Amino acid sequence: MSVQEYMQNLGKNARAASRQIAAATAGTKNNALLAIADALNETRDFLIAENGKDLQAGREKGLDEAMIDRLALTSQGIDKMIEGLIQVAALPDPCGAITDLNYMPSGIQVGKMRVPLGVIGIIYESRPNVTIDAASLCLKSGNATILRGGSEAIHSNRAVAQCIKSGLQKAGLPETAVQVVETTDRAAVGELITMAEYVDVIVPRGGKSLIERISKDAKVTVIKHLDGICHVYIDDQADLDKAYDIAINAKTHRYGVCNAMETLLINQAVAADILPRLAKGYGEKGVELRGCPQTRAIIAAEVATDEDWATEYLAPILSIKVVADMDAAMDHIAQYSSAHSESIVTQDYSKGRRFITEVDSSSVMINASTRFADGFEYGLGAEIGISTDKIHARGPVGLEGLTSQKWVVLGDGHIRQ
Amino acid sequence: MSVQEYMQNLGKNARAASRQIAAATAGTKNNALLAIADALNETRDFLIAENGKDLQAGREKGLDEAMIDRLALTSQGIDKMIEGLIQVAALPDPCGAITDLNYMPSGIQVGKMRVPLGVIGIIYESRPNVTIDAASLCLKSGNATILRGGSEAIHSNRAVAQCIKSGLQKAGLPETAVQVVETTDRAAVGELITMAEYVDVIVPRGGKSLIERISKDAKVTVIKHLDGICHVYIDDQADLDKAYDIAINAKTHRYGVCNAMETLLINQAVAADILPRLAKGYGEKGVELRGCPQTRAIIAAEVATDEDWATEYLAPILSIKVVADMDAAMDHIAQYSSAHSESIVTQDYSKGRRFITEVDSSSVMINASTRFADGFEYGLGAEIGISTDKIHARGPVGLEGLTSQKWVVLGDGHIRQ
Repeated sequence: MSVQEYMQNLGKNARAASRQIAAATAGTKNNALLAIADALNETRDFLIAENGKDLQAGREKGLDEAMIDRLALTSQGIDKMIEGLIQVAALPDPCGAITDLNYMPSGIQVGKMRVPLGVIGIIYESRPNVTIDAASLCLKSGNATILRGGSEAIHSNRAVAQCIKSGLQKAGLPETAVQVVETTDRAAVGELITMAEYVDVIVPRGGKSLIERISKDAKVTVIKHLDGICHVYIDDQADLDKAYDIAINAKTHRYGVCNAMETLLINQAVAADILPRLAKGYGEKGVELRGCPQTRAIIAAEVATDEDWATEYLAPILSIKVVADMDAAMDHIAQYSSAHSESIVTQDYSKGRRFITEVDSSSVMINASTRFADGFEYGLGAEIGISTDKIHARGPVGLEGLTSQKWVVLGDGHIRQ
Repeated sequence: MSVQEYMQNLGKNARAASRQIAAATAGTKNNALLAIADALNETRDFLIAENGKDLQAGREKGLDEAMIDRLALTSQGIDKMIEGLIQVAALPDPCGAITDLNYMPSGIQVGKMRVPLGVIGIIYESRPNVTIDAASLCLKSGNATILRGGSEAIHSNRAVAQCIKSGLQKAGLPETAVQVVETTDRAAVGELITMAEYVDVIVPRGGKSLIERISKDAKVTVIKHLDGICHVYIDDQADLDKAYDIAINAKTHRYGVCNAMETLLINQAVAADILPRLAKGYGEKGVELRGCPQTRAIIAAEVATDEDWATEYLAPILSIKVVADMDAAMDHIAQYSSAHSESIVTQDYSKGRRFITEVDSSSVMINASTRFADGFEYGLGAEIGISTDKIHARGPVGLEGLTSQKWVVLGDGHIRQ
């Protein structure tokens, strides 16, 4: 069987299973999630042994320590996967909710019902825990799933797939509701992202280059998460203590995350006041500063170039720009932001109102750290990614982002006049 | 200037204008809509004269009467465009609405704000009225628009574009908030659907071949509306009088529309009872019937082939299939429907409940004619199209379908722990 035939087969299975999983009750889906958790718990030794094969092959292949780290499946890691499944089982089922059901002048009632998207393809790197993460969210939202993990994790993923199958079976759901691609042939990805008759959405999870490659070639909608070039703007009306806390937190709470601040914009009226304090704070954390000429007139910093404004450092580096006013800050954001998350620090009511209305990013904040842009912090319970797109889902994508709404019409013999 | 440069230029203008139009108040947008209406009213003679050039060229080119009909702009047609503008001005502004603003455990407030998509490209056939239709909805929803109408309407569209520009100017909005592509070069379409840096969504309005061609090549999300292969299923528990009315209305109210029924499914228990009545009714309307063997054992009908089940006739032709039960009907729908609109006629509570939950179409109905699947009937005030896609918008797409939601976070110095 060719890779194409193999993938088409998975697609057909998924499409068929999607009808059954869409019609499954929340109880049945939760039973499946908990049965998968049990299966993981019962096959710990096998999972760790299979993962060992991947780790050995990875070391022989010369993977770096960060990659080996993400690839490794420990007993603690299995505990986390189990916890995750239990948490997702506890979330409310988004499917079937009917909203805005109203009588129309014709006498029909019209409303919207939340429904699964159908078949979701997940493409990710060699991190076996993502297999469970992604599968659980897609399953809970009533979608069939095809999971394609990095080839270095193939033994681990096959072992995890067995647990998923066993859990689905125990709950009386089709095993094909969640399918793991069990070939390492790269052509499988190309097929997955172009078989629009069987796949409704692709969610890539991984680095920017992976996501760009997939977006370029996909014939299926991609819920993508590219850069997070996030900004904090400290206004002249800011409470400078709040500004200090937020600017330090947004940059230094964690560095390698998409909601970390990469560029700090400061109103010229308060720059001389707050910059020295901030420089000291960042210095203590070991953050390298790169600044515009006005910044460098106040504190020691490297020269920030145009490239800096357009860079997601994901590292202890911060670019700083002094701006004339909020409009200049919003212009800078419009030009350089990746439309992920931006925050204004101000006590001024009118400016806050304008900033959150006019800044076109997936999260806009007043007096809060950009680090809050996160599915858990937003109360979604879990997230499958953070969309920097404008279509379908923006920002943290939880269970609801994996669904859509269809129209329901209730009549009683009504015909159109 | 090459076509590519020309289009890139429109794109840059639109992107720049999109920030201003997004920030415009409902009042300003309504003023623009009403000023465009005034401009149309004041330049009737010019519009009709310019349209005359298109009509003459069209006749010389040998366009058929239906195309000439759609191309023609009469004084009555201008009245309708003006009415449409006034109606859209009267609709509530979807933008800026904040919903679900709740306190989170961390103390931040998190909610969603409805915002424009940005820049919308509309591609349509040679129907000058669509220029105003589409422009008004995009403008009201706060989006910048690039309109590319069929080349046969170029003089008409240029004349309409002047009215739009004058209206925007009077309201103090940038003229580039609505731009009409003023070249007939076909390469303009190819450029429009691939310049993802400047265009956020493409809405094609026209025949299936146009939409398929655009979807195939687009690098921008397409809100598309393909076939409407709509079904009515008459259950064995149906009220047969209601069933008769709905089946006749769904097929014969209008033939050339996407929400007309193309296939009638009838439960075998009631087929002998209702089919002869229906055959008489359809006969009086001149509808050609094509049936499965069981249908043809009861009434006179041509043979329905597999191709019939998959065909959108858009004509006085109906395919009829007798099915064993509701599950068989839902299987048929899952296999052949274009996921537009389906209706069950039944008095049985449980079956109605299952049908609207399990059938995966953009509109699912109980005891109502599929002809109701329409933005006006659903209370949207207007529609830019009917999406048969699952992503972003399903079914009739009104102003809300041209928007998205961003997250707003209100803190008071909150940092992530």
